[in-house]
Amino acid sequence: MKTFIIPAQDIRIIVQKVGLDHLMDAMISRLTTTFRQFDAACYSIPARSGFTYHNPYLGLLEWMPVMQHKAAVAIKVVGYHPSNPTRNGLPTILSTVSSYDTHTGHLVGLADATFLTALRTGAASAIATRALMHPDSRVVGLIGAGAQAVSQLHALSRVFEIDHVMVYDVDPMVTRSFSARVEFLNLEVTPVDGSGLSRLASDADVICTATSVEIGAGEVFHDRDLKPHLHVNAVGADFPGKFEVPLTLLQRSFVCPDFPEQAFKEGECQRLLPEQIGGSLVDVIQQPEKYAYAQQMSSVFDSTGWALEDQIAMDLLLDYAGELGLGMAIELESVSRDPRDPYHFASPTYHHNSQS
Amino acid sequence: MKTFIIPAQDIRIIVQKVGLDHLMDAMISRLTTTFRQFDAACYSIPARSGFTYHNPYLGLLEWMPVMQHKAAVAIKVVGYHPSNPTRNGLPTILSTVSSYDTHTGHLVGLADATFLTALRTGAASAIATRALMHPDSRVVGLIGAGAQAVSQLHALSRVFEIDHVMVYDVDPMVTRSFSARVEFLNLEVTPVDGSGLSRLASDADVICTATSVEIGAGEVFHDRDLKPHLHVNAVGADFPGKFEVPLTLLQRSFVCPDFPEQAFKEGECQRLLPEQIGGSLVDVIQQPEKYAYAQQMSSVFDSTGWALEDQIAMDLLLDYAGELGLGMAIELESVSRDPRDPYHFASPTYHHNSQS
Repeated sequence: MKTFIIPAQDIRIIVQKVGLDHLMDAMISRLTTTFRQFDAACYSIPARSGFTYHNPYLGLLEWMPVMQHKAAVAIKVVGYHPSNPTRNGLPTILSTVSSYDTHTGHLVGLADATFLTALRTGAASAIATRALMHPDSRVVGLIGAGAQAVSQLHALSRVFEIDHVMVYDVDPMVTRSFSARVEFLNLEVTPVDGSGLSRLASDADVICTATSVEIGAGEVFHDRDLKPHLHVNAVGADFPGKFEVPLTLLQRSFVCPDFPEQAFKEGECQRLLPEQIGGSLVDVIQQPEKYAYAQQMSSVFDSTGWALEDQIAMDLLLDYAGELGLGMAIELESVSRDPRDPYHFASPTYHHNSQS
Repeated sequence: MKTFIIPAQDIRIIVQKVGLDHLMDAMISRLTTTFRQFDAACYSIPARSGFTYHNPYLGLLEWMPVMQHKAAVAIKVVGYHPSNPTRNGLPTILSTVSSYDTHTGHLVGLADATFLTALRTGAASAIATRALMHPDSRVVGLIGAGAQAVSQLHALSRVFEIDHVMVYDVDPMVTRSFSARVEFLNLEVTPVDGSGLSRLASDADVICTATSVEIGAGEVFHDRDLKPHLHVNAVGADFPGKFEVPLTLLQRSFVCPDFPEQAFKEGECQRLLPEQIGGSLVDVIQQPEKYAYAQQMSSVFDSTGWALEDQIAMDLLLDYAGELGLGMAIELESVSRDPRDPYHFASPTYHHNSQS
């Protein structure tokens, strides 16, 4: 009984063979279909929980489980360590995802989810933006220019025509290096410094906030001269007490959480009452006519990250790995031929090949 | 940045090279030391949670996280599927354990925990039995003769002299096959059928219950003619509503949960009030004089399974794997040289070897 493992090297091959654009399109498409067909009765998705610590820098390690009834369980484990890029040369977010068979409890697969998290978080924002932005939107403002900003912009570029991008990060070096990181998108990208941030906010039709702003230190832009139809993808809020969007903007906007239960704990929704929520992303995708009015007003997609998205992302990856003959199968669990003898698998008389 | 994976094949080699007795002794010894030194302030150990389902047979998939502060996080994922042995030829319990670095969130290691769960559950019972049984105990009764019964008996045989073992399972085939599974222990084992169960209970100095009794269907033996100093290791209770030990016995016994918070949810302690608990296993090990009186009365170790035990078991395994040069190192997480570019690791110009 094997466990199928997809390491970084195989994801590299998938990206190179399939292409980033095609992968993102496939992710957006599958996620849209999943949202459209989503029936809460067929899933169990508890809000994530985890450990928060200072070791000595702030860190968070969370598990995000999801069960599709009568099918599979997926658990993503995700680390959030904002000091990683500067102190360890590692991404802020490191992650893996595993899936389990609910007939037997067998660990069916394990894959890197660092890349998948960037992909699916971008895809979710693209879906929300397509549904909620004003149809004439052309200017994107990015606040926070780290790893997630790259896949946010990539995903947005797949769902509407972008004329101009402005980008700001608290770290000027990160702001400056952004253009090179999104060169493959062939977009006009203008880096701005702190003095240009208000201009970025007022010129943008769509803003993505993907920051590691500290707990209690947000809002990351001011509610001043914003476009009346501004759409914001607030991606960075993932902690109780952490938020990015001005409260006054939230209060007058159509606010759309990915996963309301979790967003009230960790997202922008922390600062709102349930009656101030417009509808979840699933609501918006399932009833487009009902929510079409939101395109004519300001809107905020409160993206906290939903385990369902990870399950869809992993399924996508498994499908490509299967098509391309990638991944490695390992006999991980010590399963004896006699299931009632936990030691038998290791006995000298045990014949490995005769194991089912 | 590699993830260290220990598959079944390498555990097989460890067992063959180190020997089962030595492994169990090492597990008992490390766990005892850990309990003796345990300081709750240095750990975060939430009660496990999980998914319960019928697909179509009863199943449970749980995650058991533990954090040693300023050090590591371990998460065991454990499946409990009582129909596995008869329907799928697989153990009731299938499990894996993973450990994470709290500096970066990196997945450091992944190992089979099917074998480890049997090992550490046995070791915990041995530690509790050594501390709580009457010193003259010589007769062991096993109720439930599946995989866990094998490692329970093995562990007990490492901490006291056993003269005689009686074994009962609801499935007569399982009862009969038990002797062969514990042949390596060279103990006198008497299988009994339903009519012999009361004799088993009344003759035993130490009973281990390790059953898949259904929710609400326990108690698995009667409180009749039991030895006044009987010690019970109740291993099977792991579900709200599932229990094994007669309530009247619990009420007059020194009840010792492994992890009180969890035992009140899922263990024998479900049926008790906090004031009916004698002390946790850590209490008993840290203050042996204070609890010595428990050896002169009946006692119940309420073993629900503690994530701390899994972390210690995994550390033991990692140490042996290191000594013996076993395990495989896989670059699992897609880490770009530029931590702010989630796509860079996959770009055609990316030089794998130059990655740190």
